Order: sequence, then structure tokens, then C-alpha cells
Amino acid sequence: MQSQTRTVAILGASGYTGAELVRLIATHPALRIGALTGERKAGMAMAEVFPFLAHLDLPMLTRIEDVDFSAVDLAFCALPHATSQAVIAGLPRGLKVVDLSADFRLRDPADYEKWYGKPHAAVDLQAEAVYGLTEFYREAIRAARLVAGTGCNAAAGQYAIRPLIEAGVIDLDEIVLDLKAGVSGAGRALKENLLHAELSGGTHPYAAGGSHRHLGEFDQEFSALAGRLVRVQFTPHLMPFNRGILMTAYVRGTPSQVHAVLAARYAPEPFVHVLPFGALPSTRSVAGSNYVHVGVIGDRIPGRAVVMVTLDNLAKGSSGQAIQNANLMLGLEETAGLLQAPVFP
Amino acid sequence: MQSQTRTVAILGASGYTGAELVRLIATHPALRIGALTGERKAGMAMAEVFPFLAHLDLPMLTRIEDVDFSAVDLAFCALPHATSQAVIAGLPRGLKVVDLSADFRLRDPADYEKWYGKPHAAVDLQAEAVYGLTEFYREAIRAARLVAGTGCNAAAGQYAIRPLIEAGVIDLDEIVLDLKAGVSGAGRALKENLLHAELSGGTHPYAAGGSHRHLGEFDQEFSALAGRLVRVQFTPHLMPFNRGILMTAYVRGTPSQVHAVLAARYAPEPFVHVLPFGALPSTRSVAGSNYVHVGVIGDRIPGRAVVMVTLDNLAKGSSGQAIQNANLMLGLEETAGLLQAPVFP
Amino acid sequence: MQSQTRTVAILGASGYTGAELVRLIATHPALRIGALTGERKAGMAMAEVFPFLAHLDLPMLTRIEDVDFSAVDLAFCALPHATSQAVIAGLPRGLKVVDLSADFRLRDPADYEKWYGKPHAAVDLQAEAVYGLTEFYREAIRAARLVAGTGCNAAAGQYAIRPLIEAGVIDLDEIVLDLKAGVSGAGRALKENLLHAELSGGTHPYAAGGSHRHLGEFDQEFSALAGRLVRVQFTPHLMPFNRGILMTAYVRGTPSQVHAVLAARYAPEPFVHVLPFGALPSTRSVAGSNYVHVGVIGDRIPGRAVVMVTLDNLAKGSSGQAIQNANLMLGLEETAGLLQAPVFP
Amino acid sequence: MQSQTRTVAILGASGYTGAELVRLIATHPALRIGALTGERKAGMAMAEVFPFLAHLDLPMLTRIEDVDFSAVDLAFCALPHATSQAVIAGLPRGLKVVDLSADFRLRDPADYEKWYGKPHAAVDLQAEAVYGLTEFYREAIRAARLVAGTGCNAAAGQYAIRPLIEAGVIDLDEIVLDLKAGVSGAGRALKENLLHAELSGGTHPYAAGGSHRHLGEFDQEFSALAGRLVRVQFTPHLMPFNRGILMTAYVRGTPSQVHAVLAARYAPEPFVHVLPFGALPSTRSVAGSNYVHVGVIGDRIPGRAVVMVTLDNLAKGSSGQAIQNANLMLGLEETAGLLQAPVFP
Repeated sequence: MQSQTRTVAILGASGYTGAELVRLIATHPALRIGALTGERKAGMAMAEVFPFLAHLDLPMLTRIEDVDFSAVDLAFCALPHATSQAVIAGLPRGLKVVDLSADFRLRDPADYEKWYGKPHAAVDLQAEAVYGLTEFYREAIRAARLVAGTGCNAAAGQYAIRPLIEAGVIDLDEIVLDLKAGVSGAGRALKENLLHAELSGGTHPYAAGGSHRHLGEFDQEFSALAGRLVRVQFTPHLMPFNRGILMTAYVRGTPSQVHAVLAARYAPEPFVHVLPFGALPSTRSVAGSNYVHVGVIGDRIPGRAVVMVTLDNLAKGSSGQAIQNANLMLGLEETAGLLQAPVFP
Repeated sequence: MQSQTRTVAILGASGYTGAELVRLIATHPALRIGALTGERKAGMAMAEVFPFLAHLDLPMLTRIEDVDFSAVDLAFCALPHATSQAVIAGLPRGLKVVDLSADFRLRDPADYEKWYGKPHAAVDLQAEAVYGLTEFYREAIRAARLVAGTGCNAAAGQYAIRPLIEAGVIDLDEIVLDLKAGVSGAGRALKENLLHAELSGGTHPYAAGGSHRHLGEFDQEFSALAGRLVRVQFTPHLMPFNRGILMTAYVRGTPSQVHAVLAARYAPEPFVHVLPFGALPSTRSVAGSNYVHVGVIGDRIPGRAVVMVTLDNLAKGSSGQAIQNANLMLGLEETAGLLQAPVFP
Repeated sequence: MQSQTRTVAILGASGYTGAELVRLIATHPALRIGALTGERKAGMAMAEVFPFLAHLDLPMLTRIEDVDFSAVDLAFCALPHATSQAVIAGLPRGLKVVDLSADFRLRDPADYEKWYGKPHAAVDLQAEAVYGLTEFYREAIRAARLVAGTGCNAAAGQYAIRPLIEAGVIDLDEIVLDLKAGVSGAGRALKENLLHAELSGGTHPYAAGGSHRHLGEFDQEFSALAGRLVRVQFTPHLMPFNRGILMTAYVRGTPSQVHAVLAARYAPEPFVHVLPFGALPSTRSVAGSNYVHVGVIGDRIPGRAVVMVTLDNLAKGSSGQAIQNANLMLGLEETAGLLQAPVFP
Repeated sequence: MQSQTRTVAILGASGYTGAELVRLIATHPALRIGALTGERKAGMAMAEVFPFLAHLDLPMLTRIEDVDFSAVDLAFCALPHATSQAVIAGLPRGLKVVDLSADFRLRDPADYEKWYGKPHAAVDLQAEAVYGLTEFYREAIRAARLVAGTGCNAAAGQYAIRPLIEAGVIDLDEIVLDLKAGVSGAGRALKENLLHAELSGGTHPYAAGGSHRHLGEFDQEFSALAGRLVRVQFTPHLMPFNRGILMTAYVRGTPSQVHAVLAARYAPEPFVHVLPFGALPSTRSVAGSNYVHVGVIGDRIPGRAVVMVTLDNLAKGSSGQAIQNANLMLGLEETAGLLQAPVFP
């Protein structure tokens, strides 16, 4: 099945998700990196931009316009949103693409404009894109040309809630998602609140009250599943660590049933692990890997359960998910290159 | 008013709350430390146990039985729960005491036994003790002989919720408290999960589902205020930082009204600061100090608000609160010794 | 002695050293803040720029040109180097000034140009400035109009080495200074290597090989003391914590003599504490305070000693030192406002 | 060459180096884990002891006496020193063993007793053991039955210094090693100074002055290489991060020559990467991997150079090194299972 090596390009390789793609592909048995782009860093070696990749023999960073896409089987697009839609619109139409930006997550152009503040510039591609939450869109991804990677927080919330909506075991009007998010999810941007001196040693909420853009994904996906409008409450908190997301989801339903539904749903999944009832997950137990841990506990108040999901935002929440999807799109083993254990301590 | 210096003893000075008392009293204008005890460290200097206090001229650590309480105006008791009740029962009956343990927080002996797993050994003192949440028990504290310091998490939750219950502006059956707690709240105990290698770089929930002992305080206080049983949901998460608590409280009520009630209630308080509507607090903005920051935002779902409270668990959540109460009990200025600004970064 | 309150201005209050000045002055018994400036943040409240100062009643940030210096007794200048010399040159000539920048640390204009890359624009002021290492320039500082705050790393190294040169007990050609420096020393600048995601969880050397600018101070001060050229080796390492410096100094001399010289020299000093021979200091034991801890140990190789100095770069290494000097310049108690204990944990 | 899978046992799998062996072997192409032991945790699943390994299908933890060594090709011994020598003495004499403890690092029984405080109980095995610094003992390791893993700090220092002694380009009497060591090197021990609240946010030296046990390895190895007694100065500092070592080595020699010697020596090595002259390494660039980064810079003082070595103490400093050696001992590809990229950020 993996007799043949496939060549990939990584567009936007100078950010964290780009570097994470390189890290994971470095030991992937069937992928090789044919091109790396970085507009502002074109001409530099990846080892200059990311010294932790110095041991690898990698192509130099180039501009996108200098990539020979005829030699590329699939392009990962790790560019900022808005830029991504413009770039992908200019790629050869037959080229398989996994986009890691927010540009193709929302199917409805009006939703995109609502959450991202301007009209979508590639509406036809938006219609074509398949939502990249592998465990729930596997067959569509296998057949897709363009896959839209999910938001990392949106992924965590969906692992908690989707099976419960599907099974009809929770109250759709009473879902509270309290998120703890590692800082690498914010990227390598030069912002004051991302400085070590500002961020370490404490925590704070951000984008509270319903303003976080990943709500667009929750609304789209949960409502489609439920066949009615579903709106969750969602409060993210910025954490003083680099990798990892913990979603604490408060739901109304029978705790044992909530656990049973999740355990059954994820039993065949290679990367999603449901802990025994009452066991509590930790971000440390999945950091550096493509694994997801799910815990369920009942509250002392009958009829209320807490579902806790942890994943690594850069791996399963972004670049690992992207490779998992690329494996499917290229006819490779879905888990290829993704079985590395988490790193602890 | 502060013409006379008062002498205090700190029983259990070898733990974090004991050291924090010393730190704060070091620059208190009207308190002097007459005795420090630590059973296992008796005979040692504080500078050996806590080198950060090396610049101070402090009494040696002694055993409690070696303290001359006739020269002491007030004793802070920073001992583990269960030990504390036994020790305080043996102190001179006229001695003013501020207890920082959990032993006198719950008024009902049955509640104590339920949450702490064994009968209370000093039921008469339990009845006498005044609950130490200064802003809500100020006059009783002023007159009290024995004040029970609150749980640090319990304090944070009550700053968010108490005025809202009093004002009748929230649904009493729909309160979710999601806590992020710095690790010093767990004390200096040698536990695997408190090691740097285990704790740094990630987060995890603990005591979820209604098992955290501070729920006993929430139940007692909220139910008394409401005149009916009030039970909240409460999920604590252990944070990879040392000082600070962030309580994210999800309530049902009109957000602007929620904000107005809190702003009005805390306007005269010297240590509790309500941010403008929509502004979000950070633990970093209060760490090292006795200040509390409160933020309120409305959710996109009408009728739902999020109240966020930050405080320093060792200062306002424990030792700062204790000194604030001691000031009242000794007839000193309430804010004496507590006006140090937070330390940032 | 402190019967009268003095009014100070803080120029450049929107950076970390400016905020630290505000933090310390907040509980200073004899200073009040009359003006705060921040060119880019003029018109904002300090609470917006630094929410941890929200509890204080402070003047709004203004432009320097809008400050009425006739009502100011002393100005702290916490501006970037190069800017500072221009600003101070424009201040009223009678105004006392404590400069926290690098602009007046080097007495020789040629040295300034060598280390800072361009000619000094206020050479007359440079000649007038007194070097601000309080314990060694106390009387000159008391009489000075313009005091130049030292580099934070330069302070740490000098506490280790100066008395040893003065006493003639070490080999002047064999001094190695290995520095571990908390990140707040780099200021609030938006640089990639200062991001939490880049800096936390590891360490790296920087400005190695003799290129760090604080070498200019070491060269000037040590050579003047020795009466000959003294050049040290100096390798700084950036640490994943916010406050604190540890200088590990390798010297040649008799360890017990090294310890004795330092212990005797600092015995009368209120802020410099020499640990017993063989005891090792920690940055945590001074963080948040104006204290310095000094440790000495002998190596197993006879004739070699290691001197270790810890201080808080923002406090004793910068803003605390500045206030200590200001106290002297204003005829106040030298320790006024600076006796706060370190914050631990 | 790797046609056949070999079975390994991990004795002492409940500590960090044991868990790291499991992590790395999880994706090793030619090793399978046949047995895991943990005396106090016998009967438990690894997922209970280390939840980050929950995705793996692993044997239960057993007692050593319950392992069937006839089915084991090689045993990794990750036990505490002193315990290790007793256990290995009781293993089948034909069994290949890689010991990760300190028990077989020192060849001279008198040295062992000097540094570890009691006589060695398996002197015959001590004589047989090969020192496990792969790049310098490769052929002996290939032929060995018992290999002694090096100290993690000792490895870092030797990567810096060995080639320089061999080439005769440095002064043997003037070597200063200043170490910055991540905390996982101290293991999972319950010690107060390893608590997050004690360790985070600062640094301090430890075992200074020539008392650190890894000096025994430096003395043995450097003296043997030089053909004369070589004693270095060595000061370790405990760092507030989990993985990674930075050794800053001060040497006397021509910097360009120092760099050239190291670059030439390590050019053929798969895991040791020498940076361009003047480039400075970071622990972050190797954390989670088996790679070593080496940097060299010249001091401004002629004839002095600084060599900086970074490696991951748990990987290349311990468990990765152990697997690299096991690969050689079992006739496998030396790099098998060890090519995972570092994890950043």
C-alpha cells in the first residue's frame, strides 16, 4: 500500500504548524518534502528559521511562485487565513490540498464573512472543501481534493460533543465549553501578550462571551448534526504552556450513558482514547503526539456530566490531523507517520 | 489608631501560608512576630526553612508547647486541618485566633464529617468560629475571638456569586464554577503530581464531579444566603504556575445587571476591584497582593453571563485574608500591611 | 528625616522598569508620583497599560513635553538608551535625575561609542553622571544631580568581584562570569526569541564571546579599581523565568579568604546578604525584592573559588536600585520603600 | 539487517528513564518489549503509572523475579544505583545488558567507593562493563555484553572536551564546565526542591565546588585520554524546565582550531551536529530527540574559547543513548528508532 513515496509541498513553512508538518514528515515512511515556501524567508534554510530541524536534509525556503507543482502530489497550506484562499485559488486545479488555515472551514460564505470580517474570495473552492475532522468525515476526505483543517479548539470541542448529539443523549441548549489552550495555538506572532514575561506564571480568559471564531465551526457542525440550531457557550483561557488543549465540557445527560456513547463511538479509532469512567485526562499525556484523550465524570447533581478532552493543538489539532487526512487522500495507511508516542515529562 | 504594636504568633510557620504570613507581616506597621512554631523543624531558623526570609530578624522555630502565649495578642494557626482543631482547643481561651486551616469553616459538625471524613473534635469551637470572608463578615470578625479562614477557591467563587444571590439576579440552579488554581494552594506536600517534571507544561482537572472539599463552603454559604439549598457545579484544574486563582463562573441572569450588582457591592471595598463591563481579568494582575479583580461579560446567548474572579491564593485567598481579619480583630486599620502592589512580570 | 513628601516623575512608564518604579513607590512612605510619561501611550491610564496597577490612583500617561517639572523633585528616566540622553539633555538643569538606561554608565565617550555603536550626544552630562552602584558610590550619589543606573547583569558581577579586587585576593587575569538572566531584563520588546513559545522550557547562551554591552561596565569599573586593565570573560544565558539573575563567578584565590572579604565588606549593607561559606543562593530567594544574596564555595582544586550572586534584575538590578539612589539624593532614609520581602513561592 | 525482531526487557520501568525507553521503543522497527518490571508497582499497567503511554499495548509491570529471561535478547536496567549492581549480578550471565544507572560507569572500585560512598558489590562485572558513550566506544560496545550508560551531564561535558584532549589543542589545567540541567535528570523522586512551587521561576546552583558525582566520570575519562591526571571545575545549576542540558565549557586554545577539531570529529556522526563557528545552541533545538548540538565561539580574550553542548538528558543523555548502544549490541542499524525530530515549541 505504501510502496511508492509521495512528494509534498509545505506552503508557509516558517510558522509553527509548518514546522510541525516537517517534524512529523521527517519520520513518515511514505512522504518526502519536495518544496518548502516562506515568502519573507525565501532563500533561507529551514535550519536558520527553526534550528531544531537542523539535522534534516531539507529544500531551501522559496517563494510559492518558484515551486514546480508538477512534481508535487499534495500541498499542505499552512498560511494565515485570507492569504490561504488567495494562494489556493492560484494552485493547479488538480493538485490535492490540505489547508490548515481557517479559510475553508465554514461552508456558508455568509458565515465566513460574519466570523472573519470580510467576504470570501474563493467561494467555489469553499463549496468544494471537505471539513477535516478525520473521524467524522473520513470517507469524504478520502475522496476530496481540498480538505479544510479544523480549528484546534474546534476539534477538541467536537470530540467531546459530536457523538453525544448524534446519539441524542444530551440537552442541546445546555452546553458549556470551558477551554484551556496552550499558547502555540496563537502562532509565532509578535504580540505583547504572547511574550514570556507577560504569559508565564498565570492565566486569563480571552475572546470570551461568544466572540471566538471557532464558534463558527461549532455552530455549523453541531447544528448540521442536530438538524436544528445549536449554540454553545465557549470561554477560552490562555495557558502558560506551549502545547496542549484541555476542553472541559459541561453537558446535561446521564453520565454513564454519556461515557458509554463516547467509548463506543471511539473504540475503533486509532487516535482517540476514552478513559475509564471517572478518570481525568491531562494535556501532558498527549503532548507531542496525534492522540486524543477523553474523560467523563458525573457531577454530584444528577443528570449532569463533564466531558474532558485533551489533544495537542499543533499535532492532532492541526499538523498531525493534516497528515492523517493527507494519508487518506493519497491512499496511504491512515496512521502512517503519526504513531510517535507523546513526550513526557 | 495604630499607636501600639501587637505581638502575634504563627503556629505552623514552615508551610507556604506560614511563610506568606511572615512575608506580609515583615512590613506591617503594627504587628511584630513574637513566636514561630514548626513541630518537625523546631530549633531551626526560618532562614534555613525559607531562605527568602533570610534578611529578617525572626524568632527561631519552636514547638507550640514552648510558646509563651501570655505575650501574644493573636495567634495565626497555619496548621493542617484536623491538627488545627486539636491545637486550637489547647490554646488559652482568651487568645484571639485566626485559623487558616479548613477546621472551622463549616458550622455544622455533620457537614465537617461529610467533607473531611471524620468527626470534628472541637465542636464547641466550631460553633464559636466566624467565617473569615472579610467583605461579608466584617462586623462579626471585628468582634470574634476565633476566625476561620476560608478556602482559597471558596473565596474566589464567593466573590463571584454572593452578591448575585443577595440581589436575586441569577438562577440558583444554574451555576457552573470552572476553576484554574495555581499549585501553591496544594502546599509544600511531597506528592508526585506536584513535581515540576509532572506539573509544568500542561494542565489537568482534579477533584471533579462534586468531590472537592470547598464545595462544603459553597453549599453552606450560598444556601444560607438564598434561604434554600443551592448546589453549584465545580471543576478545579491544576495550573502550571505557583500563585493565582481564576474562577470562571457561568451564571444565568442579565449580564449588565450582574455587572451592576457586583460593581455596586464592591465599590467601597479596598481590595476588590470590578473591571469595566467586558474587561477580562488575569491572575498576573493580582499575584503577590491582597487584591481581587472581578470581570463580567455577557454571552452571545441572551440571559447568560460569565463572571471571572482572580486572586492570589496565598495572599487574599489565605494569609492576606488572615491578616486583614487580624487587623479587624486587633482594632487596627483593616488595610494595614496589605497595600503592597502585585508583582508583575 | 522623612517629614516631607517628595514628588517624582517617571519618564518612560510603559516599560517594565517604569512599572516596577510605580510598584515600589506605591508603598514608599515619602515619595509620590507627580507625572508619568509614555510617548506612544500618552493619554492612556496606567491601568490600561499595566492592569496590575489598577488599584492605584495614578496620573494619566502624558508626553514628556507636557510635564510641569517645576513641581517635580526628581525624575526617573526609564527610557531606551540613546533616547534617554536626548531627553535628559532637555530637562531643567537643576532637576535631579536617576537614569535607568545605559546612556550614562560609561564615563569615556569612546567607550560609549565602542559598545553602543554611535557617538554620545550629551558628553557633558556623561562627565557629570555618577555611577549608580549604591554600595560603592554612596557618598557621590548623595551629592549627585544625575545618577546612572547600572546594568542589571553588571551589578550582579560587581557585587561578586569588586571587593575581591579591592582586597587584592584574586587573580585579575582569571575571572570567568557565567550569567543566568531572567527574561524581563530584555524588556517588553516584541522579539521572536522573547515569545513564551520560544523561550519557555529551555535555555540558550546569547551575546557570548565578549560582545555583551555590560562588559563595558565591567571593564571600566574593574580596571579603575585595579589600577590596570582588567578584562573578564562573560557568557550570559537567557533563562525561562521572568525575574532574577544568577551570576556564577569563577575566581582564583583562597576560598575562605574570598568569603571573608565579601562577608566583611557587606556586613553593614542593608540589602546585601552573604550566606555562610558553602551555602548556595537561589534567584527565588530575592525575587520581587531589593535584596542580594551572595554565596561562596571552594572548588576541589585548591586556590579556586566560586562566587555566586543573585538579585532581582527589575528591583535591585534596576528600579529598586534607582529608588535607593533617589532616597540618597533626596535626603531620605536609604532603605525607604525598599524593605518588602521577596515573594516566594 | 533488521529482518528479525529482538525482544527486550526494561527493568525499572516506573521511572522517567524507563518510561523514555518505552516511548522510544514504541516506534522502533526492530525491538519489542517483552517485559516491564517495577517492584513497587508490580501488577499495575504502565498506563496507570504513565498515562501518556496509554495508547500502547504493553506487558503489565511485574517483579524482576517473574521475568522469563530466556525469551529476552537484551535487558535495559533503569534502576537506582546500588540496586542495579545487585540486580545485574543476579541476571543470566549470557544476557546482554544496558545499564542506565551509575553502577558501572567507573572502572576502578576505589573510584566507585569514593564517589558513591560504599564498596561496589559486583567488582567482576564492573571490570567487564564498557562505558557507553557511543561515539567514543562504538566498537567495544558492539562486542560488549554489559554496557554502562553514562551520566547525562557527563555525556554533555565529554562531547565538548574529549576531541579537544585527543587533539591536544587545549590547556588541560584550565577547563571550567558550567552546567544548566533540566529537572528530569533528578528523576521522579519526592524531594521538596523538585516541587513545581519550589523550582519554577528561578534557578540555583547545586553540588558545586567539586562534589557532583559525574566528576568521577570526567576524571576517569579525561585522564585516560590525556595520559595524565585531568581535573575540571564543574558547577551544575538546576533549571526550571524538564528536558535538556546546556554545558558551557570554558577552555584555553585557539577558538578556530577548537571548532575545527570538533567539526571534523563529529562530521561522520549521525547524532552530533556542530554548528557554524559563532552560532549558539539551544536546549530547545534537541529536546525530545537523540541529537546533540555543539557550538563554539571565541572569547574577546585571545586564546580562550567557549564550547557549548546541548542534549536531551532523558534521550541522548540516557535512554536514547541506551537504545543506540543496544542497537549496536544486537547487530541492528545504530540509528534505528532514534531518528525522531526534536519537539518544538
